[in-house]
Amino acid sequence: MGFEIVLSARAAPLEAMLRQLLDARTLSGEIARPERLMAAMRHGVLNGGKRLRPFLVMESAALFSADGEAALRVAAALECVHCYSLIHDDLPAMDDDDLRRGQPTVHKAFDDATAILAGDALLTLAFDILADEATMLPAERRAALVLALARAAGAGGMVGGQTLDLEAERSRPDEAGIIRLQAMKTGALIRFACEAGAIIGGAAQEDRERLAEFGSAIGLAFQLADDLLDLTADAHQMGKATGKDAAAGKATLVALHGAGWARSQLNGLVGQAHALLEPYGEQAVLLKEAAKFVANRNS
Amino acid sequence: MGFEIVLSARAAPLEAMLRQLLDARTLSGEIARPERLMAAMRHGVLNGGKRLRPFLVMESAALFSADGEAALRVAAALECVHCYSLIHDDLPAMDDDDLRRGQPTVHKAFDDATAILAGDALLTLAFDILADEATMLPAERRAALVLALARAAGAGGMVGGQTLDLEAERSRPDEAGIIRLQAMKTGALIRFACEAGAIIGGAAQEDRERLAEFGSAIGLAFQLADDLLDLTADAHQMGKATGKDAAAGKATLVALHGAGWARSQLNGLVGQAHALLEPYGEQAVLLKEAAKFVANRNS
Repeated sequence: MGFEIVLSARAAPLEAMLRQLLDARTLSGEIARPERLMAAMRHGVLNGGKRLRPFLVMESAALFSADGEAALRVAAALECVHCYSLIHDDLPAMDDDDLRRGQPTVHKAFDDATAILAGDALLTLAFDILADEATMLPAERRAALVLALARAAGAGGMVGGQTLDLEAERSRPDEAGIIRLQAMKTGALIRFACEAGAIIGGAAQEDRERLAEFGSAIGLAFQLADDLLDLTADAHQMGKATGKDAAAGKATLVALHGAGWARSQLNGLVGQAHALLEPYGEQAVLLKEAAKFVANRNS
Repeated sequence: MGFEIVLSARAAPLEAMLRQLLDARTLSGEIARPERLMAAMRHGVLNGGKRLRPFLVMESAALFSADGEAALRVAAALECVHCYSLIHDDLPAMDDDDLRRGQPTVHKAFDDATAILAGDALLTLAFDILADEATMLPAERRAALVLALARAAGAGGMVGGQTLDLEAERSRPDEAGIIRLQAMKTGALIRFACEAGAIIGGAAQEDRERLAEFGSAIGLAFQLADDLLDLTADAHQMGKATGKDAAAGKATLVALHGAGWARSQLNGLVGQAHALLEPYGEQAVLLKEAAKFVANRNS
């Protein structure tokens, strides 16, 4: 409970930044952005999400005394990528979902074509934000952030994982296959969130790897908790349809090994995540809370 | 005729670069990329396109004695963006086209979901290529390329233009509206192609602006020639459906002012493009040919 208040307090400046980046004003070198497209982008982004990934960027950056405004911009870029992936995932050709967080999905509120284009524009905007001198980061770090995000979001990351997920009903992946799918589909962006903090702060390579490993651990925990909820929670609690994995015949690790096993795995992952943060002492207290929150969330 | 041979000769190293970038090998920091997704990406990219935009990148870069390998990589990135936009444009929810260059479109050869994801992955890959140290460009130029491409491809550029185009059947834009739509939908990427050459070569701001203006002029010519062909050519000649604009009731400048007016405009634009290249003398001879080719092409 307490941690949700922290999350929501940290989300406030992010919402303001996202609103600023998603208004219809003309950026330099651009012609005015069409209002209907911007409205669809705002619908997909300003929707009351928990902003977990942005929180991870900002807290990880704080470990290395990074500039807060730079971290906020990078966090906003990452949230644009996360939200674009949800917009495309919800399309009739993909998961065909009508509701997200209790609201109509973008293709329901607008139309399929606008949802495709709004997703495309959000993905593009993310790289615009990262490369822009307005982040006040040296070009070397801006380029490193673009590269790391592109790797996390592309064919060998999130989009690759979504492809494997679509195939999973038919191909019935084994345990190693499920782990690979999840590490790509949801793990890669969470890993990037934590690694990005180290890049923004100009941390040593060792710290960058440590933060990335921390991100991998909580990414895995995030997915296990999600699978557990899909099995046990109801649609009202989640604000979206549940039980869909089982209905679709999709294997999850939780379905394979049971809820008791999943809870013990989650404890192990939280311990591992906390151990990785030991070098940062008291400064890492909120990131440690985040790991516990990810593992124990009930919505 | 002669110029098509030049284009096709220049396309050969680009095809090799695209093949290399689109194989299923693992990039650093990635898990293996799913083969079906990579196959869909290759289907959408390695399809016998004329590679006009890559040619413009490479020739513009040569004006500033830029490294050829760097220009080739940037050209490949731009072609990934161009091809992603075609894949998404062809979807049933958008233009609903079954054929492109005489071949089944990606969603026909695979399925809608895979086509959406292949487009997403190609857009992401473009930024991966630009930000990668493998371009051998200083970080400052890599970041500048990412930013310029994101501006050209995003809500204030190509994707914004696609949105306006979808609305055009209903909103019936006036002449200024059509010009704006076309400058965004097809003009922005062609403008970027020429400007990118100046960025790769580390040219002065004045040269960068001059090349961008050259790109704008031939972008406009490209669209006028396209509209003229849509009115006069048959489907066999174009390798895709023609007469669609008129059938959809979409206004074009050619429909408004007639074919004679369009041909005279095209002459004017070629003259303007050539004048912009005067400072570069003999070195710009192929870019001048490109401007003529764009204005006079018959397929």
